[in-house]
Amino acid sequence: MIKALFFDLSGVLYEGEQVIPGALATVNRLEKGGLTLRFVTNTSRKPRMQVLADLKRMGFTIEPEQLYTAPAAALAYCQAHHLSPYCLVHPSIKDEFRSIEKAPYNAVVLGDAAEDFTYRNLDQAFNILIEGGMLIAVGSNRYFRDEHGLHLDAGPFVKALEYAAGVNAIITGKPSEAFFQQVIASTSFQPGEILMVGDDVIGDIDGARRCGLETCLVQTGKYRTGDENALTPPAAIAADVSAAIAHRLPML
Amino acid sequence: MIKALFFDLSGVLYEGEQVIPGALATVNRLEKGGLTLRFVTNTSRKPRMQVLADLKRMGFTIEPEQLYTAPAAALAYCQAHHLSPYCLVHPSIKDEFRSIEKAPYNAVVLGDAAEDFTYRNLDQAFNILIEGGMLIAVGSNRYFRDEHGLHLDAGPFVKALEYAAGVNAIITGKPSEAFFQQVIASTSFQPGEILMVGDDVIGDIDGARRCGLETCLVQTGKYRTGDENALTPPAAIAADVSAAIAHRLPML
Repeated sequence: MIKALFFDLSGVLYEGEQVIPGALATVNRLEKGGLTLRFVTNTSRKPRMQVLADLKRMGFTIEPEQLYTAPAAALAYCQAHHLSPYCLVHPSIKDEFRSIEKAPYNAVVLGDAAEDFTYRNLDQAFNILIEGGMLIAVGSNRYFRDEHGLHLDAGPFVKALEYAAGVNAIITGKPSEAFFQQVIASTSFQPGEILMVGDDVIGDIDGARRCGLETCLVQTGKYRTGDENALTPPAAIAADVSAAIAHRLPML
Repeated sequence: MIKALFFDLSGVLYEGEQVIPGALATVNRLEKGGLTLRFVTNTSRKPRMQVLADLKRMGFTIEPEQLYTAPAAALAYCQAHHLSPYCLVHPSIKDEFRSIEKAPYNAVVLGDAAEDFTYRNLDQAFNILIEGGMLIAVGSNRYFRDEHGLHLDAGPFVKALEYAAGVNAIITGKPSEAFFQQVIASTSFQPGEILMVGDDVIGDIDGARRCGLETCLVQTGKYRTGDENALTPPAAIAADVSAAIAHRLPML
């Protein structure tokens, strides 16, 4: 029996600035029904407070302690390991990393830097890594969807730097087990009592499945036909978040 | 017995604008000795004619038909397969691809685009690939060395796009077998009679070895301690191109 739910944000609750139809009513109904809700995102294009503000503006009432973000996990990792990282992250979250970014660098933090993924910045990151620096990445997401279409996420740039410098990145967000375990531990439930709902078959579904969670892949956001077959057995799918909940929690 | 030699250029004969000590005398001696010489490069930062002009300025007398470049192989591949590629290549070689670049695109040609590796350009390439376009890459070189240090080559960006779009690139330059076979066919010798001299253990040495060539990895250019151990058995090494020839062709 499902007692807690983990929701990915972009592509599940909203797409760009638009709430996905039925998402708001679904989340409100679960909240009123007394279920434990967590929101887990690899988004690294906006600060944590902005994520909360955007959710609120769209009508979602989410407390800060319900939100788990990959950049916050990267920051915590660097602090715990006393790293001095060069932070190749989006300009909008540069401030969150300012306290730990100082030369000489012994690590690189890589988020979805978007237009800041210049050859010069990537080359600088590469030179830190090939001299022995650690690579800390928020996620390995291949792409995301906004109102204009599909766009490169941080993952491809992680792969580029891993290959160039011959290193393996430490992923702090989804699908890393440490990330999911942290969110699981914030609830009082067993993994089998938790349902993860996401649109990324690897980051959301495979990651959650490896931690023993129940999962549902929604066919909104970045979902592309056949994505469910990337896993064995294939991921359970639903048309959108409200269909996913109607199917798994019909009594609500 | 070695009857022909294939030389990589950057890092073997020169580094940046500087001829590597002994390289000029070595090449001239081999030429006078009647050996068959070929020059094979994945360089895609300057046009073919510029490569020849730079070699001439440094004192090397190389005929156009002795030079094999990865961008020329990419161009020939696109023409043979009637592709309409988006060309994410260095500004200096854009002109060489102008005749084949036309929308709607059904392929991406990827060279070492340097500063033109912007997020926007990579995102455009990704969108062509995820809609079914082919990825044609000049090489998979991880990095190169110039007078300022090590820098990202085309390979990391190939890996980024392969991962993002779930595709496999066709590599037209080293270490592709088709590329080496074309150069071998231009000589009248068997692979075992040819020595490849290069500073890239994968592109130069592994590629040539797979085609049956003799090989020597030089410890100049991008060479880093231990590179020879990336292969099994380890690559034969020499301090530089003149040491390589002195060892393998002592009678010259």
